[in-house]
Amino acid sequence: MAALARSVLVTGSNRGIGLELVRQLAASPRPPQHIFATCRDPEGPRGKWMLCDLLELSSTLLFALADAVNLPSIRGAVRAVGSHLKDQGLNLLINNAGVSSHATLRSLDSREMLSAFATNVVGALVSLLQEFLPLLEKAAKGVGKEGLSCSRAAVINISTKLGSIGLCLKVPEAPMYPYRASKAAQNMVTRCMAAELQDKGILCVAIHPGWVKTDMGTEKAPLMVEHSVQGILTVLANLSQDTSGAFLDWEGNTLPW
Amino acid sequence: MAALARSVLVTGSNRGIGLELVRQLAASPRPPQHIFATCRDPEGPRGKWMLCDLLELSSTLLFALADAVNLPSIRGAVRAVGSHLKDQGLNLLINNAGVSSHATLRSLDSREMLSAFATNVVGALVSLLQEFLPLLEKAAKGVGKEGLSCSRAAVINISTKLGSIGLCLKVPEAPMYPYRASKAAQNMVTRCMAAELQDKGILCVAIHPGWVKTDMGTEKAPLMVEHSVQGILTVLANLSQDTSGAFLDWEGNTLPW
Ligand SMILES: NC(=O)c1ccc[n+]([C@@H]2O[C@H](COP(=O)([O-])OP(=O)(O)OC[C@H]3O[C@@H](n4cnc5c(N)ncnc54)[C@H](OP(=O)(O)O)[C@@H]3O)[C@@H](O)[C@H]2O)c1
Ligand SMILES: NC(=O)c1ccc[n+]([C@@H]2O[C@H](COP(=O)([O-])OP(=O)(O)OC[C@H]3O[C@@H](n4cnc5c(N)ncnc54)[C@H](OP(=O)(O)O)[C@@H]3O)[C@@H](O)[C@H]2O)c1
Repeated sequence: MAALARSVLVTGSNRGIGLELVRQLAASPRPPQHIFATCRDPEGPRGKWMLCDLLELSSTLLFALADAVNLPSIRGAVRAVGSHLKDQGLNLLINNAGVSSHATLRSLDSREMLSAFATNVVGALVSLLQEFLPLLEKAAKGVGKEGLSCSRAAVINISTKLGSIGLCLKVPEAPMYPYRASKAAQNMVTRCMAAELQDKGILCVAIHPGWVKTDMGTEKAPLMVEHSVQGILTVLANLSQDTSGAFLDWEGNTLPW
Repeated sequence: MAALARSVLVTGSNRGIGLELVRQLAASPRPPQHIFATCRDPEGPRGKWMLCDLLELSSTLLFALADAVNLPSIRGAVRAVGSHLKDQGLNLLINNAGVSSHATLRSLDSREMLSAFATNVVGALVSLLQEFLPLLEKAAKGVGKEGLSCSRAAVINISTKLGSIGLCLKVPEAPMYPYRASKAAQNMVTRCMAAELQDKGILCVAIHPGWVKTDMGTEKAPLMVEHSVQGILTVLANLSQDTSGAFLDWEGNTLPW
């Protein structure tokens, strides 16, 4: 099997789904030539643990600081990645960093809601893409590149079934207004990006990873992070022109908006 | 025809669709007993004009200050409305106030995007409903009230077709990321509210008014505000249990999320 992409960047890769994405990418039979694992606190205890753990897998792994709600920090990551890649662009950007936020209509605090939008939509999605767009465009223009695929240039936004307005599952039991609303907004941004960037050769997709055992998903979740990420990587390998702008789960099923 | 509701509150009613809603409600053969026209600047030039214009139509019209991004101002409106209604609740809350915001992916400014969320989702929708909920619950409990309808208790959120992720019309020509994303988030909130409030007898619906000649819609819009509002009021009169949580246009057609 060919490498999924020559270069991949994952946000929020110090734990949970992001960490497992980097781990499986690095451990695959044909790993990407460049894997950029980013997190907002690489020097902190969690970041250090990740570093030791992953460096055994790959010597080409690069770590970068990227706090999604901090523009200078995102720009620093773009510079580090750009100078590492030299004249090549970045093929695959996986926007995985995100925060959850539970609240009922009654308990909802407007600052909490705005902060979910600031992280999940404005920072981790829009600002990040704006800054990495030149590197993605460079990759999309690479020689012999046609159609849309992760190996050419792609933006993968990790979304959630709870962000599906059509499904709108079990609201009274899982109200989570700020999380749901921010993820619905994120899905809209994915669709707009897909429409705007397809002519530039950049694919955009929203992926629901399943309900996964991570700090966010909790121990109650039915799905192991290994299985979720195996599924996601298989889905990514099969993305094409036809699926750009889609909302898929980790098994490749289409979800309603 | 019976009155649409005994009491109605409209936000952003000093111009555009909100003003026309108040005008047609007041001028209807059986007007609501209480119409609350709210705006964020009733003493300003636009507010004053509205006041003179509308007072000729109805003597029971009450004006209140309600700046959707200012909690004390919303609470002031709740107190004014509550003391006016005495022991009755508020039947119909029309969340019409909103801001538009155009931006391409490249020109997008993160503050502009957050500000669209702050007005269209957090303030004009969530905070407003949180504060008016006790008055809506009181109305829903009124004697002889069954099923869901605008005459019992309802929240109408004025949304837009541009907030439909499924349609995602003409992105390159009308990028409007902040507006679209905030309205998709608003639609998610409408669905969550509908699910959470139906057991309390409160109906929630998202309505697309059409593309309407107002300051926001511009002169290029094909639809006169009078026609849009006639359509909306007809749709509202026919809402029931079956349509709670729906996304309808001013002609009653269902739109995809
Ligand atoms: N787990 C599930 O069941 C599930 C289901 C559906 C969707 N998802 C989505 O999957 C993604 C990953 O979730 P997860 O389960 O792996 O969550 P997690 O274990 O809570 O990890 C979240 C990651 O995002 C990072 N992050 C949060 N805010 C950030 C910021 N401002 N800048 C940079 N990084 C930031 C965190 O970094 P820190 O360690 O520094 O906080 C962490 O690396 C999220 O987008 C989530 O919405 C998860
Ligand atoms: N026109 C269209 O084609 C169209 C299409 C689809 C959906 N819509 C939706 O319809 C609704 C009304 O639009 P419109 O065309 O009548 O727009 P408009 O002419 O621009 O009027 C907007 C109204 O919202 C008020 N508003 C804005 N921010 C506010 C705040 N923070 N607090 C209180 N009031 C605030 C404005 O008050 P000020 O005068 O104080 O600014 C004004 O009364 C909006 O939700 C819009 O998204 C319109």
